[in-house]
Amino acid sequence: MKMSEFFMPTLREVPAEAVIASHRLMLRAGMIRKLSNGLFAYLPMGLRAFRKVEKIIREEMEAIGVIEFKPPVVQPGEIWRESGRWETMGDSMLKPKSRTGTELVVSPTAEEAFTALLRDEITSYKQLPVSVYQINTKFRDEIRPRYGLMRAREFTMKDAYSFHTNDESLDETYRRFGQAYRKIFRRCGLSVIPVKADSGAMGGSGSEEFMVESMIGDNNLVLCPKCGYAANDEKAQCAPDALTEKDGNIPAKEMYEPIDTPDVKTIDDLCGFLKTRPGFFIKTLIYRAVNCETDLSGAPGCSNLEKTKTENGQDYYPEAFFAVCIRGDLDVNEVKLAAVLKASEVQLASEYDVERLTGAPVGFAGPVGFTSAPVIADESVISAGGEVLIHNAVTGALKADTHFIHVEPGRDFSPWMTADVRTVKAGDKCPVCGAEFYTKKGNELGHIFKLGYKYTKTMNMTYLDENGSRQTPTMGCYGIGVDRTLASIVEEHNDEDGIIWPVTVAPYHVAVVPIKYEGRMKEAADTVYKQLSEAGIETLLDDREERPGVKFKDMDLIGIPLRIVVGEKNLPSVELKARDSKNTELIPVEEAASYTAGMLKKMTEAFATEG
Amino acid sequence: MKMSEFFMPTLREVPAEAVIASHRLMLRAGMIRKLSNGLFAYLPMGLRAFRKVEKIIREEMEAIGVIEFKPPVVQPGEIWRESGRWETMGDSMLKPKSRTGTELVVSPTAEEAFTALLRDEITSYKQLPVSVYQINTKFRDEIRPRYGLMRAREFTMKDAYSFHTNDESLDETYRRFGQAYRKIFRRCGLSVIPVKADSGAMGGSGSEEFMVESMIGDNNLVLCPKCGYAANDEKAQCAPDALTEKDGNIPAKEMYEPIDTPDVKTIDDLCGFLKTRPGFFIKTLIYRAVNCETDLSGAPGCSNLEKTKTENGQDYYPEAFFAVCIRGDLDVNEVKLAAVLKASEVQLASEYDVERLTGAPVGFAGPVGFTSAPVIADESVISAGGEVLIHNAVTGALKADTHFIHVEPGRDFSPWMTADVRTVKAGDKCPVCGAEFYTKKGNELGHIFKLGYKYTKTMNMTYLDENGSRQTPTMGCYGIGVDRTLASIVEEHNDEDGIIWPVTVAPYHVAVVPIKYEGRMKEAADTVYKQLSEAGIETLLDDREERPGVKFKDMDLIGIPLRIVVGEKNLPSVELKARDSKNTELIPVEEAASYTAGMLKKMTEAFATEG
Repeated sequence: MKMSEFFMPTLREVPAEAVIASHRLMLRAGMIRKLSNGLFAYLPMGLRAFRKVEKIIREEMEAIGVIEFKPPVVQPGEIWRESGRWETMGDSMLKPKSRTGTELVVSPTAEEAFTALLRDEITSYKQLPVSVYQINTKFRDEIRPRYGLMRAREFTMKDAYSFHTNDESLDETYRRFGQAYRKIFRRCGLSVIPVKADSGAMGGSGSEEFMVESMIGDNNLVLCPKCGYAANDEKAQCAPDALTEKDGNIPAKEMYEPIDTPDVKTIDDLCGFLKTRPGFFIKTLIYRAVNCETDLSGAPGCSNLEKTKTENGQDYYPEAFFAVCIRGDLDVNEVKLAAVLKASEVQLASEYDVERLTGAPVGFAGPVGFTSAPVIADESVISAGGEVLIHNAVTGALKADTHFIHVEPGRDFSPWMTADVRTVKAGDKCPVCGAEFYTKKGNELGHIFKLGYKYTKTMNMTYLDENGSRQTPTMGCYGIGVDRTLASIVEEHNDEDGIIWPVTVAPYHVAVVPIKYEGRMKEAADTVYKQLSEAGIETLLDDREERPGVKFKDMDLIGIPLRIVVGEKNLPSVELKARDSKNTELIPVEEAASYTAGMLKKMTEAFATEG
Repeated sequence: MKMSEFFMPTLREVPAEAVIASHRLMLRAGMIRKLSNGLFAYLPMGLRAFRKVEKIIREEMEAIGVIEFKPPVVQPGEIWRESGRWETMGDSMLKPKSRTGTELVVSPTAEEAFTALLRDEITSYKQLPVSVYQINTKFRDEIRPRYGLMRAREFTMKDAYSFHTNDESLDETYRRFGQAYRKIFRRCGLSVIPVKADSGAMGGSGSEEFMVESMIGDNNLVLCPKCGYAANDEKAQCAPDALTEKDGNIPAKEMYEPIDTPDVKTIDDLCGFLKTRPGFFIKTLIYRAVNCETDLSGAPGCSNLEKTKTENGQDYYPEAFFAVCIRGDLDVNEVKLAAVLKASEVQLASEYDVERLTGAPVGFAGPVGFTSAPVIADESVISAGGEVLIHNAVTGALKADTHFIHVEPGRDFSPWMTADVRTVKAGDKCPVCGAEFYTKKGNELGHIFKLGYKYTKTMNMTYLDENGSRQTPTMGCYGIGVDRTLASIVEEHNDEDGIIWPVTVAPYHVAVVPIKYEGRMKEAADTVYKQLSEAGIETLLDDREERPGVKFKDMDLIGIPLRIVVGEKNLPSVELKARDSKNTELIPVEEAASYTAGMLKKMTEAFATEG
């Protein structure tokens, strides 16, 4: 491609909102432009790199026998009602209405669409397992779209779905996807951290996320330096860590008792006041859960809760409240809590609700004598096995300016449920080997997930087994964010001058840059360009009337892996330089194309996957 | 691809709603499935053919230097407000609201998006002309989606846009697109009818539509057998055809006069009653125009019309009424009328409005003495040059059961405007050569259009010219419906057994069908399949355990161009048959692949474009 015939508007300056490298560099290199908040357009150069990533994903999907479909982007709301997600997906789902008032969805994902398509086609066990995918436009109405492609509202996702007659078959397909994902990211030049994790309320034997380390990552990764345990903190567990001391500085007593704690606003105030440490508090937080599917019949304070049903008959509570008790030096992880409660979301209750439920201002909630909502004890308070891990504790007393001391869990209160809802942090112990965790921030690029029967049951997908009985298939799903993968490549491969594309995803392989596009230089540049193009090498010829400095800066910015400079003084040789190296080589014009082709071949082979 | 690893659910029966060949056959061949009304999913086999069409389009776009972008499918409503189309596009545009209430649009087309993207990048005449395109998802909320892919709500469109400093440059690009479109459709094996037409209210020197003949076509094509004039009837003109006789059977008089016409309901009744012919009537129809941009200040009956402005300051009337007079044997074409009135839509006025405006029941409207709305005379009544073409005419008298006779246009009434709004029909005369038109029904596959300044002006796109003055570029747009093109290929290439894919767009080139996939037959089939695949020929191996009859029927249905049958009795030869021929050839196994490759090469060359 001759640059004079291309469209590549490079920029010196970018908007202040572009704070991360990929956003900044892809804007500067003329690869993307913002059309509106969270809505980006790929310009031609960016689109070329995007297509390379797509192609790698497609090849690895085909290699494991996954078959491509193309469902519509706009989907009927009806199937989302069948699965129950019409109600539970929340505001991130864009739900336009048709001119006749029927409900539509701009697809944020496609479990429903593929289940709907395949339930009409799969009739027999002989057709299973089957794995299908699409690479298609998705929309999620992020509250705060930012970081360019990294968190846009419209994006492209590769989403695959598999259907099976049994768990072993799902396990096998899941394993193959895991391998394919590793290959995909390796071929893209990305260092990913596969994070194995429980799949929470979904059941099944797990899910795995593929993370890249990122300063602006919205995931906290909990990593074990010894055994390799790696988990998203939304799912990470740690070894139980009972306090080593039996008591705080307050001598134990047979019975809890109230004390006045006037002007005591924070846990630190209280520690000073009582001369104890945060670990001896039982912190009690009131949470509001949205669309909670846990059965609360008979639970404290729940007799008057509004209960309703999704379209497919699943009971749920649009709103329910809980008191969560946790050791005073720990934090509640709201995603873990939501998973425990089978809720679509949990959030700290409003001041109004806290006062209504505890009968006291915020700051004095406690489990003793609390009956207006179910109490959930984190396993830092009472272990899963029922062992009390905090003795002689301090809690709020459900009364202004008052706390209880000498509280004994089990004796003074019994939780409705114990659960692991703590946020695991650096320094906590690995549940597998006991080593101390470290943490990183990460962005999720891919996710593979054993869904089990969630969609196939609610959407009534069945097949006939060997004996002619009707069965429900089990299901897996497997996603990769294409734009985010592309942006992450730029995050990992850049320097102060610009992008350094891995050869596998570079928009062009070689840039031919004549110092001036005239006379002998033009002739030599044209020759090399022609030979490279004929050899099937994607080559950019910088035939612009710009100063050499501008051309070099642009080429460094765009990050084409190999650059051939054609200057008067080196002729009949040209200068070859790799973007990621300072070294240059002089090659005779007539050998330049074949030499470059050989070099490219080697560079590409370095990314080849090992079968 | 082995069929056992593919997903190709063929059907014997299809829903009754599938009335056209492409809809029926693509469902039966397992290429598409309906997810909801007007929302289709491509299954793997259909997607392969779809991609072939996409590729042909992409190659021909690149060949004329058009550069690919990828804007988002969901677009900000804001830019549609800028262009003024937020208000005027009507209900076919899907307008979801974001969670924060901002207006979004699921792109039905992308003039606004590309103008918005390029106005920020184009600063100098040196960057022009530039031509850009996308192949992307579109959505139009059709009132009656039907005929499968032919009129779906979601579809894929190739839409290109060009920007220019002057008309000559636009003309040149427009011409190149026209050539590229001819190549694209030829390569797809389609017989298209390019229909040159005026571009109506848009100005500029024209637009051209690419039609395929179709029984269910929603366009009426007006064609001249002699000079090649071809136009959509929404735009077609014809030679003036004044009545050859001066009068009807009613002797002329100096002054029009009323007559009682009791119990006369239809034009036929009236002809019987008056012993005249429909051609001597001036039929007067009251139309309601929506979003009319014509200046109506001072026009009859318009002083109290509500007038408003689009976001970009264009005046328009949300609702305006007109009386249209036309010769009694002709029909008004509403699209031509809307173009004349610069309205987004026109429709016959309601009974209520007719009575309100004419003071009489429906059936007695007439131009004489009519002042409550502007009168538009079709050129069948008064020519563009002012010549009166109907004398001594009959009209409604604005009074129940009454008509006027002896009406003389010009003398008895003067229209506010004369315009060509008649529907041209078979038998009308060509305006170029005078031959008699014939007509066909057609579906539009592509459209190229000189837009002029409509978007660049309203959206304020400018560049600096050679002299440093700020100028507005002129613009063209160029669309192809990808799905509709694919469906039209099936419409043109099928027989009673199924689809007959042209080799250029066939999902696979060759099907290898062993009578039974076992023993020597399996061995030979595997050999041929392997050799073909290694030669880069897209081959389907029917390794299913099905009866030969089922396999043959399926292959005929899917329509793979070449079929190799491996049967015990012919071994060591195999039987080669083209889908579009009854003849078979016996080829030795070891030569089958190379012979087939040679045959394919010839078949492909037959579609090659001539430069």
